[in-house]
Amino acid sequence: MNQTSKSYHCRTVEELTRELRHFAGERDWDRHHTPKNLASALIVEAAELLEHFQWLSQEESQDLAPEKKKEVAHEIADVFIYLTRLADRLDIDLMAAASEKMGLNAIKYPPKTHT
Amino acid sequence: MNQTSKSYHCRTVEELTRELRHFAGERDWDRHHTPKNLASALIVEAAELLEHFQWLSQEESQDLAPEKKKEVAHEIADVFIYLTRLADRLDIDLMAAASEKMGLNAIKYPPKTHT
Amino acid sequence: MNQTSKSYHCRTVEELTRELRHFAGERDWDRHHTPKNLASALIVEAAELLEHFQWLSQEESQDLAPEKKKEVAHEIADVFIYLTRLADRLDIDLMAAASEKMGLNAIKYPPKTHT
Amino acid sequence: MNQTSKSYHCRTVEELTRELRHFAGERDWDRHHTPKNLASALIVEAAELLEHFQWLSQEESQDLAPEKKKEVAHEIADVFIYLTRLADRLDIDLMAAASEKMGLNAIKYPPKTHT
Repeated sequence: MNQTSKSYHCRTVEELTRELRHFAGERDWDRHHTPKNLASALIVEAAELLEHFQWLSQEESQDLAPEKKKEVAHEIADVFIYLTRLADRLDIDLMAAASEKMGLNAIKYPPKTHT
Repeated sequence: MNQTSKSYHCRTVEELTRELRHFAGERDWDRHHTPKNLASALIVEAAELLEHFQWLSQEESQDLAPEKKKEVAHEIADVFIYLTRLADRLDIDLMAAASEKMGLNAIKYPPKTHT
Repeated sequence: MNQTSKSYHCRTVEELTRELRHFAGERDWDRHHTPKNLASALIVEAAELLEHFQWLSQEESQDLAPEKKKEVAHEIADVFIYLTRLADRLDIDLMAAASEKMGLNAIKYPPKTHT
Repeated sequence: MNQTSKSYHCRTVEELTRELRHFAGERDWDRHHTPKNLASALIVEAAELLEHFQWLSQEESQDLAPEKKKEVAHEIADVFIYLTRLADRLDIDLMAAASEKMGLNAIKYPPKTHT
């Protein structure tokens, strides 16, 4: 059996967190995965994502060709992977942090009222 | 009842996606939330996250004071929020994209074998 | 005389390099100014620059109000300062590197020919 | 004579600015070179620069192999090129902006006094 052909089907952030922890462990990456390094790796992936859009118009950015969209999905995945890994290394709950921040944003940016 | 004091308890990426869609809709933000702009906003938040670590040693970055960790959690949340929003606008499934990318990474970086 | 009110009038990259070296020395910053940290600080400033443009249309980005333009000039300056400092720490000549890269770009992107 | 083999020897920011303006003009790039797009391109290059350092220790980042240093010099050049181009498009004087910002930094961060 070829270990490298393993496929993943993570359905929750917790599952993804566990799989990434295992993945890093198997490769002896933990000593490289400090929060400082992971925050750098994350922004590098965020830039690879932005690169796809840098010369596009707003309209073009909303209407990607299938091949391009596939590449963009991979870059989005890379950002998500490093973000999940960083949160895990800092013992931060991603879903709880996002929920709390949404509450703060709701106060900072009240919804438009209709008269 | 004060709408702005609403609290959020998203447990899944799907729920977060729906809440963010509703949040943007209530504020008439959809016309600003093009993929091009969201990819920019995402990297700006990734930089605010990195800023916390830029002058720290690797060791210091693993041992944040509670107040600092709280701020870092908010920045992580901001990145996650924009990432989720961008994936939604492009009709990309975050969990599926991450799983697929992990499979590719497993091929690219085979685990260390122990002899 | 108040040292902190010193004003600077650098006319060349060499002069800026020397002043920044002196500035860092006076503040005992050299041990923090490793290439790794400076590359992080540089991208953080690049993000503060991008932040001014993230929700603007292309047209709006070309027509900044004077107060906004002043803020953008400060962010551009911050990027330039860290870039100069990083080049100095790596003993790289900024003007020579840019000239060499332009030569490579000229080969990679030949000018449009008019028939 | 082959135009694409042109070599550049810019000695000042002004000269680099003029050459880049000419370079963009010859390629009909001005309509893409809005401040918004250039600020994105700049941060993408800043990330390619950071990528070289992301898994290095502080010490390793100060002691690059010659081949690596060459690559880093090219990334530094790319950041400098987009920065110069952006300043030009906004009619901002790079050297003057850096000098002014250094004056502000000198007030914000007074030098250590020795007793």
